[in-house]
Amino acid sequence: MLIQEKVEQAIKILTEYDVDCWVTFVRESAITRDSMLDFLVTADVTWHSAFILTKTGESYAIVGQMDKQTVEDLGVYKSVSSYVKGIKEDFLKTIKEINPSSIALNFSKDSEISDGLTHGMYLTLHEFLSEIGYEDRIISAEKIASSLKARKTEYEIERIKKAIQHTLDIISQVTPLIEPGKTEKEIADFMIREVEKRKLDFAWEKSHCPAVFTGPETAEAHYKPTDRKVERGHVLNMDFGVKYEDYCSDLQRTFYVLQEGESQAPPEVQKGMDTIVTSIELARQALKPGVQGIEIDKVAREHIVSQGYEEYPHALGHQVGRFAHDGTALLGPPWEKYAQKPYKPLEEGMVFTIEPRLKVPERGIVTVEEMVVVKEGGAEFLAEPQKELILVR
Amino acid sequence: MLIQEKVEQAIKILTEYDVDCWVTFVRESAITRDSMLDFLVTADVTWHSAFILTKTGESYAIVGQMDKQTVEDLGVYKSVSSYVKGIKEDFLKTIKEINPSSIALNFSKDSEISDGLTHGMYLTLHEFLSEIGYEDRIISAEKIASSLKARKTEYEIERIKKAIQHTLDIISQVTPLIEPGKTEKEIADFMIREVEKRKLDFAWEKSHCPAVFTGPETAEAHYKPTDRKVERGHVLNMDFGVKYEDYCSDLQRTFYVLQEGESQAPPEVQKGMDTIVTSIELARQALKPGVQGIEIDKVAREHIVSQGYEEYPHALGHQVGRFAHDGTALLGPPWEKYAQKPYKPLEEGMVFTIEPRLKVPERGIVTVEEMVVVKEGGAEFLAEPQKELILVR
Repeated sequence: MLIQEKVEQAIKILTEYDVDCWVTFVRESAITRDSMLDFLVTADVTWHSAFILTKTGESYAIVGQMDKQTVEDLGVYKSVSSYVKGIKEDFLKTIKEINPSSIALNFSKDSEISDGLTHGMYLTLHEFLSEIGYEDRIISAEKIASSLKARKTEYEIERIKKAIQHTLDIISQVTPLIEPGKTEKEIADFMIREVEKRKLDFAWEKSHCPAVFTGPETAEAHYKPTDRKVERGHVLNMDFGVKYEDYCSDLQRTFYVLQEGESQAPPEVQKGMDTIVTSIELARQALKPGVQGIEIDKVAREHIVSQGYEEYPHALGHQVGRFAHDGTALLGPPWEKYAQKPYKPLEEGMVFTIEPRLKVPERGIVTVEEMVVVKEGGAEFLAEPQKELILVR
Repeated sequence: MLIQEKVEQAIKILTEYDVDCWVTFVRESAITRDSMLDFLVTADVTWHSAFILTKTGESYAIVGQMDKQTVEDLGVYKSVSSYVKGIKEDFLKTIKEINPSSIALNFSKDSEISDGLTHGMYLTLHEFLSEIGYEDRIISAEKIASSLKARKTEYEIERIKKAIQHTLDIISQVTPLIEPGKTEKEIADFMIREVEKRKLDFAWEKSHCPAVFTGPETAEAHYKPTDRKVERGHVLNMDFGVKYEDYCSDLQRTFYVLQEGESQAPPEVQKGMDTIVTSIELARQALKPGVQGIEIDKVAREHIVSQGYEEYPHALGHQVGRFAHDGTALLGPPWEKYAQKPYKPLEEGMVFTIEPRLKVPERGIVTVEEMVVVKEGGAEFLAEPQKELILVR
């Protein structure tokens, strides 16, 4: 179902970008996995395998003999061939038949989701293609892989929405249990058990999914929950996502733990929260097809700096899909590590997080992460955004 | 613990092979994972990250700021540095400091476990190193990665043994439930539930772990269990493994379903079983450090052919470790897809499967898979081998 849909989508993308032929070349995908395989086959493949799609609508799979039945069962490839001793002969025969003027391969300096071809496998392919004088036809499949990842089908959006629902549900469930003296770990453990009870997967490694961090000078997101205790007057945050039928959510929510006598957060915490909420809304409004991600990051970053805070040391938002960090186009600043990603024009069907962050001295970190989908007219929240601090009494 | 042990082992291997410096260069390892990371860090890393070990015993990790704490917590790297905008400056500074005459990177045409560097990341590194004129110092880390994978420490062997125990236990548990009319799926489902009950992981994809196949003309191993029913007079087989604390087992057992009036298998099935058992024992006896895998495959293959059967269409055995198919050296024939793997000399500490197979016409497939560890004096079974058919009454 997904595979059928994505293979058809890939063929349309080849036409759109006028690329004759796209080759995904893999082996032992249980060891090092090209993420494009998710759209090409339902199981891991063992021996050298090639999945070849063409602009003219042809589709070929060449796999080891013992993987053949699994690929045939998909009913997606017009031609499935298999071998016992080596792939070269079948592969070159197929490529000569297609005689493409360009052969797109999954490598990219800038985009990790388009970079599933290992260097050794590249050398192997290059050697094969040199034998028939086709090695100069190799190009990067970055554009193809990126669009295939980014343009979410209904099937994909539905699953992301389900993942988001579960995430917000679990956050609601844990909220009444948060109180002074509880540790970050205890809070996280409850959430982990709930993910397991619901038979969901974690959107990223369980060791820091959720990340729960409370008070000033924490290690923040990407770090595992510690024995640090919830304290009155501190801000508490969680970064959490689940995977529902292979599709992820990635959200953050911010809490404030009231001190004795307080019925609301102190002004500096409230200002932090308002700044974050406004910066998210400004970013969402700016987020439209054709705009570059760098512009969106700038809107949020500038708003935060204008309110007297330091810039956040990361991008404003990333795509979400089968991975919590997914896709090529990024809502990010022009930093070396982001390469060309912030310059890629945004496309309809992309799902992004918007996750600015700021520090409130002596209180903690205010960081809310929402998820939006890019539509023709602009970006829509995929769930009710957090507008107010969640107050812990 | 494991990381500390493997990093120390890696440094010794660098000395042994006289390689100045080994660099594992990764990003977003949740998406495309270099399997060497298993020995270098306990969590996924997000941004461009370099793990650098030197022959002289230095160890450096350079990671994105938000991954720093996790890497520091390991207490393994003498230097952990982090960046916000890009890795290049820190990376080149470190490399210039080391000034290595060779820089080993994880790429290999022949060995997938040594081929975790993607082509895009290779291009990035090449570009970085060109800036300081070091690009000609790049070499393949295949030998280093292969030995690090292959030379199992006590810690690793213990876990593999536990995985094997669980596997054989679960096979014993399911045995009394096998009877005519039961489907392959029903048998597999029982085993899957048992894996989950024991909170183990599957050694390979759950969809065909176990593979259960019964009777003639089945899709065999690597294919999912079907609704085909157990029938009297047929041979039944299962290919099954679990993962215990990240280490795998991979075993096959063969059953015969007695017909009315039979108290033992018919001669042709018995002969098939005896042939397999003998070929495994012959292979085990030949398996010693320094010998090439191709020799071991030949011993078993020739024995089977000498008894009048067709050759099996695969290698005799592969290494097992954190993956069910692991390592570079292979007990395999000289086929294109196996490249140089069958020629690699066997080393102490390698864990191999021995898994010949043959067809008994109209009965099914006889295939037993054992696991052995290579010791100085020869190979030892890691569990009691199957000598007799398991008879289903």
